[in-house]
Amino acid sequence: MYRSHNCGALNASHINQEVTLAGWVQKSRDKGFMAWVDLRDRYGVTQLIFDTARTEASVFEAAKTLGREFVIQVKGTVIERESKNKNMPTGEIEILVSELTILNAALTPPFTIEDDTDGGEDIRMKYRYLDIRRNPVKNSLLFRHKVAMEVRKYLSDLDFCEVETPYLIKSTPEGARDFVVPSRMNEGQFYALPQSPQTFKQLLMVGGMDKYFQIVKCFRDEDLRADRQPEFTQIDCEMAFVEQEDILDVFEGLTRHLLLEIKGIAVDKFPRMTYDHAMKTYGNDKPDIRFGMEFGELNAVAQHKEFSVFNSAELVVGIAVPKAGEYTRKEIDGLIEWIKRPQVGASGMVYVKCNEDGTYKSSVDKFYDQEDLAQWAKITGAKPGDMIFVLSGPANKTRVQLSALRMELATRLGLRNPEVFAPLWVVDFPLLELDEESGRYHAMHHPFTSPKPEDMALLETDPGKVRANAYDMVLNGNEIGGGSIRIHDKATQQLMFKYLGFTEDEAKAQFGFLMDAFQFGAPPHGGLAFGLDRLVAILGGQETIRDFIAFPKNNSGRDVMIDAPAAIDTKQLQELHIKLA
Amino acid sequence: MYRSHNCGALNASHINQEVTLAGWVQKSRDKGFMAWVDLRDRYGVTQLIFDTARTEASVFEAAKTLGREFVIQVKGTVIERESKNKNMPTGEIEILVSELTILNAALTPPFTIEDDTDGGEDIRMKYRYLDIRRNPVKNSLLFRHKVAMEVRKYLSDLDFCEVETPYLIKSTPEGARDFVVPSRMNEGQFYALPQSPQTFKQLLMVGGMDKYFQIVKCFRDEDLRADRQPEFTQIDCEMAFVEQEDILDVFEGLTRHLLLEIKGIAVDKFPRMTYDHAMKTYGNDKPDIRFGMEFGELNAVAQHKEFSVFNSAELVVGIAVPKAGEYTRKEIDGLIEWIKRPQVGASGMVYVKCNEDGTYKSSVDKFYDQEDLAQWAKITGAKPGDMIFVLSGPANKTRVQLSALRMELATRLGLRNPEVFAPLWVVDFPLLELDEESGRYHAMHHPFTSPKPEDMALLETDPGKVRANAYDMVLNGNEIGGGSIRIHDKATQQLMFKYLGFTEDEAKAQFGFLMDAFQFGAPPHGGLAFGLDRLVAILGGQETIRDFIAFPKNNSGRDVMIDAPAAIDTKQLQELHIKLA
Repeated sequence: MYRSHNCGALNASHINQEVTLAGWVQKSRDKGFMAWVDLRDRYGVTQLIFDTARTEASVFEAAKTLGREFVIQVKGTVIERESKNKNMPTGEIEILVSELTILNAALTPPFTIEDDTDGGEDIRMKYRYLDIRRNPVKNSLLFRHKVAMEVRKYLSDLDFCEVETPYLIKSTPEGARDFVVPSRMNEGQFYALPQSPQTFKQLLMVGGMDKYFQIVKCFRDEDLRADRQPEFTQIDCEMAFVEQEDILDVFEGLTRHLLLEIKGIAVDKFPRMTYDHAMKTYGNDKPDIRFGMEFGELNAVAQHKEFSVFNSAELVVGIAVPKAGEYTRKEIDGLIEWIKRPQVGASGMVYVKCNEDGTYKSSVDKFYDQEDLAQWAKITGAKPGDMIFVLSGPANKTRVQLSALRMELATRLGLRNPEVFAPLWVVDFPLLELDEESGRYHAMHHPFTSPKPEDMALLETDPGKVRANAYDMVLNGNEIGGGSIRIHDKATQQLMFKYLGFTEDEAKAQFGFLMDAFQFGAPPHGGLAFGLDRLVAILGGQETIRDFIAFPKNNSGRDVMIDAPAAIDTKQLQELHIKLA
Repeated sequence: MYRSHNCGALNASHINQEVTLAGWVQKSRDKGFMAWVDLRDRYGVTQLIFDTARTEASVFEAAKTLGREFVIQVKGTVIERESKNKNMPTGEIEILVSELTILNAALTPPFTIEDDTDGGEDIRMKYRYLDIRRNPVKNSLLFRHKVAMEVRKYLSDLDFCEVETPYLIKSTPEGARDFVVPSRMNEGQFYALPQSPQTFKQLLMVGGMDKYFQIVKCFRDEDLRADRQPEFTQIDCEMAFVEQEDILDVFEGLTRHLLLEIKGIAVDKFPRMTYDHAMKTYGNDKPDIRFGMEFGELNAVAQHKEFSVFNSAELVVGIAVPKAGEYTRKEIDGLIEWIKRPQVGASGMVYVKCNEDGTYKSSVDKFYDQEDLAQWAKITGAKPGDMIFVLSGPANKTRVQLSALRMELATRLGLRNPEVFAPLWVVDFPLLELDEESGRYHAMHHPFTSPKPEDMALLETDPGKVRANAYDMVLNGNEIGGGSIRIHDKATQQLMFKYLGFTEDEAKAQFGFLMDAFQFGAPPHGGLAFGLDRLVAILGGQETIRDFIAFPKNNSGRDVMIDAPAAIDTKQLQELHIKLA
C-alpha cells in the first residue's frame, strides 16, 4: 500500500496516528536543523517536517536532496503544527517523518507548478501533463466531471436514456467540414466523423427510443478561431411527441438544476425573446442580458434634419451607457478608434453627453437642439450622467457594430460579472439565411429543422421571412444550446432539400435513409444540443474553454504534446488505398 | 401537448379520466361493431377501443383504416376492460376513444415489430430504426444505459473523475490497426483514432489526476470476426499510487456492485487464478468456472503402456463429463467428428465410460485395465455415470482443443446458464508472447505493462518466462476487463521498447512524449479497462453484443442502414492532400 491517507485527508483528529503518504514535493524549506516539505496530490497539500532532534540522520539528509516535483512516499506521525494555517484543511497538523522513499525523481519542471505559473501558453501545452498538476486546470477538470454527472443524473431521473451513436458514419453535404477516415476493407471509400449525431438521434425517435441523450464528442474541420476545437463535446438530446414548449420546459429545468446544484444560484423562469427582437434590441442573437444598454432606434427623431450622414442611413441607432457621461474627450476618441478597427468596421460615431443638470452636449450640436437630444435620451433610456453613443448605416451591419460596442463597454464597465447568470431563450429563428456570395439560401440551423406551419406559404414567395421552430439557449452572451422541432414527414423534408438547392439525387444519396425512415411511422420530434465545453467554462466563471479540456489542440489543430497529426508510413497508406497528393 | 400520459402509465386508478395518448399501432382488430387497437410507445402498450355504440361514426371509420406502425394520437376516457390481462401493467383498462388523429402514416414494415420477428439479420440491420422498436433491442439499449449509469455513479462516489481524452491522436506502432484521419491543415499528416486512451490516462496520472475513468469509444481496424466491431466502448480506468491489490479491490467492488444492483445477485470475493493454473486446468486464460470439468493430466498414469499415441504425446489430458456415461456410440462418434473439425483440429479422442457399478468401459481397453482407468477417473474427478474424454498431443495445442470440447459439452449439457455469474481474476500473465512467424516477442498486454520485479532478471535469459503485473477479470468464460500496473520510469520503459524490438529512434518518435513525462515526477500507477459492449451483453444474459449497440456495423465494417463508408468527392480529397491509390 502506497498510502494510508491522501494529502488532503489529515487534520487535528488524526494527531498521534502513524500514517503513510505519497505525493509530489510542492516545495521544501531547510533551516539547518529543521526541514519542511509541502507534499501535494490531487486532494490537497500536507506539510512534512524533518527535525534533526527527532528524525534519523539519513532520512534528514535524504529530505534535503528532494527537488520540486519529486515523487515520494513517507511514513510518520501526525503532530500538531506550531504555526497553524486555518485556510487549509490540513493546516492544523504536520507529519513528523520517520521514513522517506523517493519513488521517482524529477527534472526541474519547465514552469512553476503554481496557481500563478510563470509558464506561457505554448510551453504549458507542450507539457500539458505538468499543467494539469496546477490547481486552476485540475479543478476545471474536476468541475467538468461534476457538471457532466449532474446532467446525466438529472436526465436519467427524467427517464432519458443515453444511447451511443456511431463515430464512423457517412460524409454529409456540409462535407467540406467533415473529418474523414479511409476504409481499408472498402476500397476507395471513407467514413466521416460526426459533426453531430443529428440523423442518428432522429432515427432513434423513429425507432421509438423517445427521450434520448448522449454526452458525445463531435468533430468539425474548420479553420480554428481562438477557443474553437476540432473535437468538441455536446450534450445531445431528442424527444418524441413533443412541441417546442415541451423541449424548452425540460432543458430550462436542466439548466436551472445545474445552476442551483453546482453554483447554488436559483434563477427564475427564463425570459424568452424572438430572434427579431434580439437583433433589434441587442444587435445579436445571443444577447448578454446581465446589463441593459438596449438599442434605441433613432431614425424617426434623428433623420430629416440637416445631418446628412444620418439622413442617408438605413438605420440610426444608439445606446445609453450608464455613468459614462464623465468620459474625457480622449476616452471618447479611443472608443471611436476602437469601433473603426477592421474587426468592428464602423466609419464613425456620434455621442451625446447627458449632463447631470439635464442638459445635453453632443458631437452634433450643430444639427440637433436640446429638445432633439432629449428625445434621443428618452428613446435610449439615458439618464443624467450617462453617455449616448449613436451609429448609423445599413441596418444589419450597424446593429452588429453597435452590439460589439455594447459588449466592449460592458466589459470596460465591469458589467459582465462571471458570477451573475442571466439565461434566456431566443426563439423564432429564421429558417433560412441568404448566402450573399452565392445568392442561395442555406438552412440557418440545419436542413431537418421544421418551418412554422403558418409561414410555410412564404417559402415560395419570401423564403427569408419563414420562421423556424428553432430556439437557442443563451447564457451571458453565449449560445450554450440550440435546437429545433424537426421535420418528420418525407414530403416536407423533400421540399426542404429542394429549397436548399439539392437535386433529388443528391438528397437521396445523402439522406435517403432518413427519408425512407420517415415513411415507416415517424413520430413528431425535436431536441437540442448543448456545447459542454462552453457551458462548463461559463458555469466555472471562465472566458476560455481550454482549461476545461484535458488535452486541447492549438489553433492549427495540433496536439503539441504528442506531436499529432504526423506522417504515417507508405505501407499503411497502401493498405488504406490512398496516396499523398 | 401530444399526450397526457405515455402508453405504459395508465391503470385502474385512472378509470374515468380523460386522457390523450400518442404512439404506434402495434395491432388492430375489427369485429364489425367494435374495433381495438394496441397502441405502443417506449413505455408500454395500451389498448384502445372503438365502439359503434359509443364512438362517433367518422372516428370509427378512421380507426378501421389504421395500418401497423401508423403513428396516431387519441383522446378518450379510461374505462375498465372486460377481459383483463393481469400480465401487463395497463391490462386492467382500455381507452374508449373519442378523437383520433393520424400523425403519420406508415408503409407496411419489412418485418414484424414483434419480440419474435420474421426478419433476418440483414434486413433488420438495414432498417435498424424499425428493429429498435422491438422489445429485445429496445430493452437491451435501456439496460446498457442503466449499467453505464451505475458504473459512473459507483466510480464517482469513490472520487473517480471522468476525463475526456482526445479522439484525434497519433498513430501507434500497432499502427496497422489504426484508423487514420488526414489533416487538412497539416498537409501530408494524419491523426489516428485511439485504440484505447492508454497513453493519455498514463499522462493524467503523471499530471496528478489520480482516479481517472472514462466510458469511451475506441477504434480498431482489424478483420472483423463475428461479434467484433470496428468501434467499441471501454470503461477505461487508472489510479496512481497503487499496487495490483488496490486495483483488484476497487474493480472487483464495481463488478460486485453491478451484479447486485442490476441483477440482484450477491457474489463472494472473486477467486484468483494464475495464468499458468488457468491454462493447465481449463486450457484457457478466460475459464468459465460456472461448471467443473477441470483438466486431469494423465501422463503419469497413461504413458509407458502399450498405447503409442499417448506414449509419444507431450501431454495426455482428460475431463470427466458429468452424467455423460449414457452417451450412445453415435453421440460419441459425433463428438469425435466435432473435435476433428478444422476449427478445433484434434486428430482423435479416447473415451472412458464410468459405469454406475464402478467398472469402466473405454475405447482403449486393449491397453489399459480397470485399475489404470480407475486412476484416470480419480485424476479427472469422474464419478459413476460420467464419461471421461482424453486428448493427447503437443501441450499447448491439446489444452486449447480440450478447452473447446469442454465448452461445447457444457453448452450441450446446459451448464452455461446465463443467469449464473461466476467472476474471477486471472493474474500473473506472461509479459511477452512469442510470435511464431517472426520469432519475435510481443507485449502480451501492451508495452507499458510492468514486469514483476522478481522476474526482471529473466528478461535477458528466458523472456517468455517473465511474468507481468497484469490481470484480467473473467466472467462466464469471457474476458470482460484487463489491465496492469504500468512502468513509470523512463529507464525501464526504454528497456521494454528495446526488448520489443524498437530502435531508440522509433521508440522516441512514437512515445518520446511519454518517456519525457516519466522524467518529471511520474507516480507508480496502474489501471484496467472493461469492454462495455461485452459486459452489458453478459449481464443481460445474451451471447452476442449486437443488440446492445444501437447502430452496429456488419462484418465488413459497413453500416448498411446509412450505407457507409462511401465515396467522397475529388474536391474534398484535394483539400485533404490525398488521392485514391
